Amino acid sequence: MSADVVALLRAELGERVDTRPASLEAARADKSGHAATGLPLAIVNAASVADVQAALRIASATRTPVVPRGAGTGLAGGANTGGGEISLSVRAMDRVIEVRPDDLLAVVEPGILNADLNALLEPHGVWWAPDPASRAISTVGGNIATGAGGLLCAKYGVVRDAVLGVDLVLADGRLLHLGHRSVKGVTGLDLTSLVIGSEGTLGVVVGATLKLRRLVEGERVTLTALFEGVRAAAVASAAVTASGVQPAIMELMDATSLAAVHRLLSLPAPPVGAAQLTIQTDGPVAADEARVIADVLTAAGGHVSVAADAVEGEALLAVRRAMHPAMETLGTTLIEDVSVPRSALPDMFDEIARIEREFGLVIPAVAHAGDGNLHPNFVFDGPDVPAVVWDAAEELFRAALALGGTLTGEHGIGVLKRRWLADELGDDQWQLQRDIARVFDPLGILNPGKVFAP
Amino acid sequence: MSADVVALLRAELGERVDTRPASLEAARADKSGHAATGLPLAIVNAASVADVQAALRIASATRTPVVPRGAGTGLAGGANTGGGEISLSVRAMDRVIEVRPDDLLAVVEPGILNADLNALLEPHGVWWAPDPASRAISTVGGNIATGAGGLLCAKYGVVRDAVLGVDLVLADGRLLHLGHRSVKGVTGLDLTSLVIGSEGTLGVVVGATLKLRRLVEGERVTLTALFEGVRAAAVASAAVTASGVQPAIMELMDATSLAAVHRLLSLPAPPVGAAQLTIQTDGPVAADEARVIADVLTAAGGHVSVAADAVEGEALLAVRRAMHPAMETLGTTLIEDVSVPRSALPDMFDEIARIEREFGLVIPAVAHAGDGNLHPNFVFDGPDVPAVVWDAAEELFRAALALGGTLTGEHGIGVLKRRWLADELGDDQWQLQRDIARVFDPLGILNPGKVFAP
Ligand SMILES: Cc1cc2nc3c(=O)[nH]c(=O)nc-3n(C[C@H](O)[C@H](O)[C@H](O)COP(=O)(O)OP(=O)(O)OC[C@H]3O[C@@H](n4cnc5c(N)ncnc54)[C@H](O)[C@@H]3O)c2cc1C
Ligand SMILES: Cc1cc2nc3c(=O)[nH]c(=O)nc-3n(C[C@H](O)[C@H](O)[C@H](O)COP(=O)(O)OP(=O)(O)OC[C@H]3O[C@@H](n4cnc5c(N)ncnc54)[C@H](O)[C@@H]3O)c2cc1C
Repeated sequence: MSADVVALLRAELGERVDTRPASLEAARADKSGHAATGLPLAIVNAASVADVQAALRIASATRTPVVPRGAGTGLAGGANTGGGEISLSVRAMDRVIEVRPDDLLAVVEPGILNADLNALLEPHGVWWAPDPASRAISTVGGNIATGAGGLLCAKYGVVRDAVLGVDLVLADGRLLHLGHRSVKGVTGLDLTSLVIGSEGTLGVVVGATLKLRRLVEGERVTLTALFEGVRAAAVASAAVTASGVQPAIMELMDATSLAAVHRLLSLPAPPVGAAQLTIQTDGPVAADEARVIADVLTAAGGHVSVAADAVEGEALLAVRRAMHPAMETLGTTLIEDVSVPRSALPDMFDEIARIEREFGLVIPAVAHAGDGNLHPNFVFDGPDVPAVVWDAAEELFRAALALGGTLTGEHGIGVLKRRWLADELGDDQWQLQRDIARVFDPLGILNPGKVFAP
Repeated sequence: MSADVVALLRAELGERVDTRPASLEAARADKSGHAATGLPLAIVNAASVADVQAALRIASATRTPVVPRGAGTGLAGGANTGGGEISLSVRAMDRVIEVRPDDLLAVVEPGILNADLNALLEPHGVWWAPDPASRAISTVGGNIATGAGGLLCAKYGVVRDAVLGVDLVLADGRLLHLGHRSVKGVTGLDLTSLVIGSEGTLGVVVGATLKLRRLVEGERVTLTALFEGVRAAAVASAAVTASGVQPAIMELMDATSLAAVHRLLSLPAPPVGAAQLTIQTDGPVAADEARVIADVLTAAGGHVSVAADAVEGEALLAVRRAMHPAMETLGTTLIEDVSVPRSALPDMFDEIARIEREFGLVIPAVAHAGDGNLHPNFVFDGPDVPAVVWDAAEELFRAALALGGTLTGEHGIGVLKRRWLADELGDDQWQLQRDIARVFDPLGILNPGKVFAP
């Protein structure tokens, strides 16, 4: 039966079907550190919408599960493909079809990397604002499928704010054009928004009309402030938000994170227990805004240093950007992703400290403080997440929900958080969402076991 | 049977059930100039979530259609309630539950008027940006249900950009909490976005967590530019967008509109054929931006006048705001609402001129030029839309779609545009959307005959 499926795929898609063992092995995992059980049947490297449609028609006819895939940089296991499944990669569909600086839109294929797109847009004086830290390695389609966010998103928005329409191939191979090219439009239900963040459960994104912004004029000013502890830093970040000045970037690193990055980059060790805010302002009044923010931070007990120029500014930000590699030096990492209202950041850090104590763990944490999204990192030895880490993570989720927050701010549910989804949504909403997914995919062949697994 | 329904409603909801003839008559219509056939069974004036749930449980048990209603200012007939139907008004649920300037959010009931909410928010230094021209008379719940936009939305966004979560009562009376209080969140499918613009077909919005903005600091600068014709004005507005300066407001009035308003306000008649742009900049660099824009407009052949101060600025904008009353002096109006990519505005005005010629009609038109949303007004005598007007409107829709646009930028489908919905969506997407609505409302009792009428 599975031999049949591969034969059918090959008959229609020839070279585009890859069954080499190394490729199959790679398709089992994304960057979450987790891998699916068993080896996929095949990888289909689609080069066109017609390829995607052909693969899905065969999958529907044979009831074979299909896992859509961009660059496989996801952190929730969403693209992991296991035994009996087809990995459907759109990475090769990477053309930019159209750039319209006058209409502030671009039409693209899903496989283009976020950074490659932005490099192409720059000469036109425009950019696509979503900037996940993975922008050099993740696809626009994957960004859409996960609803990605990034450092700049408190000021410039997340993917949800930056897509006008998507072309979607349904599980049965039909192609739908969702949305429109106009800025405004309320014709029927907003299925474009529904597809954003749907993690491959509703269909395969084969094209997108993106909402662009003009490049920001003027300078950028970067500053850091060192605080005696993470609570003080969190309180200061809330004070910045409350001051009414909107930083482009506002990142928080707790003491363990900061110390680990300093070690990795061979920088002098920070004071014991010290936490840091890294803030960037931009636009025509960037310098004024930086001054206001520096005053707020100083009043909140921070030791502020302002970068003399852009190069120094980049060096300050490089510390934050080195978080991921620094964690990898400590062991295997489960990167969590809860999000809370901004004013609840200090309380959320208190909760993390409590969970560290209660479970005997060290949980280095950073936060996109401008929007209340935290990434606590559970570090452990060996490939498998120990039970105590899952227990601690569960406690973390509960704490975030109790503070009015959510399980995942940007990485998605995938396989890693599916068992907590109903806790947040409630059983009624969980069932309703699953029934909606079934309208798109009645046979349940699209990314089964992800997000809505029973 | 229908007497039974009213008796059941009364038994549970007492005084909240209104069957006075004048009230029933009023519930037949919104502000579209269209009314439903027959008289509603009753109006339920819900004062609480429990009231809404009780009414919907009775409606489900008796299979009685329910039409959700805010203030009834809609322009698509969405709230019109006819024979055998219950009008479920949430206008009386108008409390503001919580305002959090630090988190830039507010939790409100659906019946509060947009302007009342903003008056309450102002002392906190924050506002809810969606600003339909009807903001003094329309509800926040209605704004959400229609996905309303307004003059400021090119710069500050539409409703879709300004809602974090909604509480929704389903047709069977169950209450769901969609979304969250955090800025970011990608947990499960984005049902909040799906409800925005759903025109009462998915459930009744009984609460909302709104995303606020800080009040804009600095001055506002208003200017107008007169052009020899509407095409020249449209080309100039596209040039402003392409210049990279983002006006807060950019409104276009064609010659017939401008002349009608000048007559209504007893202003000197504008030059024959002249069209006008009215533009406002705001924020810390408003004056600089106004200067750049004035240069662009002059280069595009416009005669620019800049308001000396805020009072003069308001007087310039009052001309645009008088459009609706001015049209009412001409006859009965069908206000259309197509939206196109900004660069297509000049072409769309050419299409309107062609349709005027071909159908022998005068179609005064204004546009939110900053976002490509046009309101061509079909004016006629008597209460019913003549066939020739519908034919011309159909031609208008076709032209907008051909230019990459959409049937409705802000007013919705309701009853007035349902017969064209499948033309834009395609049959497959139309059916998919309808099936999704059925997941929320399996019996099809919520606003039947609206949006997805067969
Ligand atoms: C170092 C590092 C830093 C990161 N930083 C961030 C960050 O700052 N912000 C953030 O949001 N994320 C971040 N991520 C996570 C990840 O990069 C994002 O989730 C990204 O959007 C995934 O894109 P991808 O192309 O790799 O998708 P994949 O990993 O291939 O897929 C992700 C999910 O989307 C689905 N999918 C992918 N493409 C399609 C498609 N065309 N149609 C339908 N479904 C599809 C898959 O089935 C899967 O469920 C980071 C990851 C790493 C490794
Ligand atoms: C003079 C004038 C100017 C206008 N200008 C604009 C403008 O600039 N921009 C714009 O977008 N619109 C404009 N409108 C149209 C109208 O005001 C908007 O559509 C508004 O959002 C409707 O709000 P409402 O409370 O009156 O809703 P209603 O008319 O009562 O209802 C509208 C639709 O929403 C549904 N609905 C209402 N409340 C709920 C709820 N709580 N739960 C579920 N469904 C609900 C109804 O069933 C109906 O389908 C204008 C109207 C007028 C008369």
